[in-house]
Amino acid sequence: MPSTTDTSQLKAFTQHIAGQVEKTIQADLATELQGNDPLLVEVLHYGLLGGGKRVRPMLAILCSRLCGRDDNELYLLAAAFEYLHVATLIHDDVIDHADSRRNRESVVKKFGIAPAILAGDWLHARSMHLVGKLTGQAGLDIFCSATTAMVDGEFLQLRHVADTGINEEQYFAIILRKTARLISSTCEIGAVFAGGQPRQVSALASYGRKIGIGFQIIDDLLDYLGDAQATGKVVGNDFVEGKLTLPLIHALNSANPAATETLLRCIRGDRALPDSCRAAKQLMNELGSFHYARKRAEQEIVQGLAELDLFAAGDDSESLAMLAGLAQYILNRNR
Amino acid sequence: MPSTTDTSQLKAFTQHIAGQVEKTIQADLATELQGNDPLLVEVLHYGLLGGGKRVRPMLAILCSRLCGRDDNELYLLAAAFEYLHVATLIHDDVIDHADSRRNRESVVKKFGIAPAILAGDWLHARSMHLVGKLTGQAGLDIFCSATTAMVDGEFLQLRHVADTGINEEQYFAIILRKTARLISSTCEIGAVFAGGQPRQVSALASYGRKIGIGFQIIDDLLDYLGDAQATGKVVGNDFVEGKLTLPLIHALNSANPAATETLLRCIRGDRALPDSCRAAKQLMNELGSFHYARKRAEQEIVQGLAELDLFAAGDDSESLAMLAGLAQYILNRNR
Repeated sequence: MPSTTDTSQLKAFTQHIAGQVEKTIQADLATELQGNDPLLVEVLHYGLLGGGKRVRPMLAILCSRLCGRDDNELYLLAAAFEYLHVATLIHDDVIDHADSRRNRESVVKKFGIAPAILAGDWLHARSMHLVGKLTGQAGLDIFCSATTAMVDGEFLQLRHVADTGINEEQYFAIILRKTARLISSTCEIGAVFAGGQPRQVSALASYGRKIGIGFQIIDDLLDYLGDAQATGKVVGNDFVEGKLTLPLIHALNSANPAATETLLRCIRGDRALPDSCRAAKQLMNELGSFHYARKRAEQEIVQGLAELDLFAAGDDSESLAMLAGLAQYILNRNR
Repeated sequence: MPSTTDTSQLKAFTQHIAGQVEKTIQADLATELQGNDPLLVEVLHYGLLGGGKRVRPMLAILCSRLCGRDDNELYLLAAAFEYLHVATLIHDDVIDHADSRRNRESVVKKFGIAPAILAGDWLHARSMHLVGKLTGQAGLDIFCSATTAMVDGEFLQLRHVADTGINEEQYFAIILRKTARLISSTCEIGAVFAGGQPRQVSALASYGRKIGIGFQIIDDLLDYLGDAQATGKVVGNDFVEGKLTLPLIHALNSANPAATETLLRCIRGDRALPDSCRAAKQLMNELGSFHYARKRAEQEIVQGLAELDLFAAGDDSESLAMLAGLAQYILNRNR
């Protein structure tokens, strides 16, 4: 396993890259939106430039560099992944009637349903356009397949809303599709863009899939344990919406009959009552379910890091260390 | 101007092609959706296979044939245009809270907001994937630019809701972006797919733009004068939603002060009252506004047909006649 970088180094690097990506996004919007409706321009700037962790652009850039390519076009490719990511966030917030995102009003809350759906569509089209342009057929295949798989994952998730019979396998099938495949495609396309060797491309795709799964498990954990201020999301939101994630699935599988009954009552009753979520959370804590979920995320991250071994003898130790640091950050993040 | 085909020939041809395109869509969905969530499969089948005029697939096929290519892949390309078209219809119906489409429940009414937005995203991704795969960078450029322009057109339309100061130039700017560019891109990409010469590609793009503008003017006319059963849409819907289209713009420009005041009262008052729309419609009729709009559509169609002259000496007189017939159909359709 490669040595990771320390937190302050990763932070400085991340901020630098995020700044470059934002400049690229601004330049691309300026060109593409020339003569376009001012509200469209405003909505896209609001949606794209209001913070965000920029994990996906970072992954695309690091994976490309690790395979030997680093030029200005790379930032545009990185921007494309942020476009698609933001498109899905904007559409998700319409679907979930979410009022806030990244500690401010969501696009749908601020601008309404029509601008939100349409701006998502604009970003969707522009992201595909850029990926096709910069990585050709190979990249477009990976990107579009990941996007349609993401939709499938969302449908799978809808199917299991408030489904107390959901098992771990089904949970992992959902998060693989709705999160991990797109993160994996980001890494894979970064490598393809650089003309990486097949085994490099495959290792980075696998790294992305593993840390993508870890990322979503931690996301689901933060939904219960996170600080609303830091995450920019409402704590317990998944519970209220009936999304049964790993900690709750673990709790349902390991509770004694009395605890199971309490959990089922919480899930099947009025989930919006603060008491329901609090009671469920306390039980999950007692049953070690949060600890279990964290361990599972850790396993995925460790396996993801192992994929980077292939690059240990390479020249670009900085990118390697940053990719390893990013995986650690995903595990330890509080937002 | 090429001679057009008679209506029954066009109808038989259209039905044959529509059948082939539907078979292709079914085969593509069967392959692409293997192992996917059953509800996603159901929503996509419902959205794609419930009728529709299949104008876009037809245009893609005829333009490709006219430039000398006709093979099985062409049907898949044609399907891609129907995918994007249906994606926009599904998202539009979410935005407009439309309960019906093509004489049955809209996707959003039947399945809800989440499946509608997500299915639209799936179709969006799959359409880009197919266009990129089948026509490479050149086709993808045209397609994605038309898609982002369409979003711009929708924003422009939103900006002018209930805007009684809207002029013809602004109206044409909206319909060029929201309808004509995508129809134009369909024709242009069909020609590119076939490896057409630059002037062929350009003539067919121009043909598509002209008939696309004509198409939208007639659509806007049918919104007032159409038969709800035939169009599958509610008559006067644009008026109720505050979309000021060509007949109403003409009326506002040519009415005397008293008639202008009546029109403004109708538009600025409760537009959902049947009396408002009825009074406005009567005035538009008296002012010759419907006649004027039809004449404008006719002009566009005639100009579009003139673009086909380039192909008059070519081998494929059947496709040429069908393209001419399609332009006439667009003008004379009742749905």
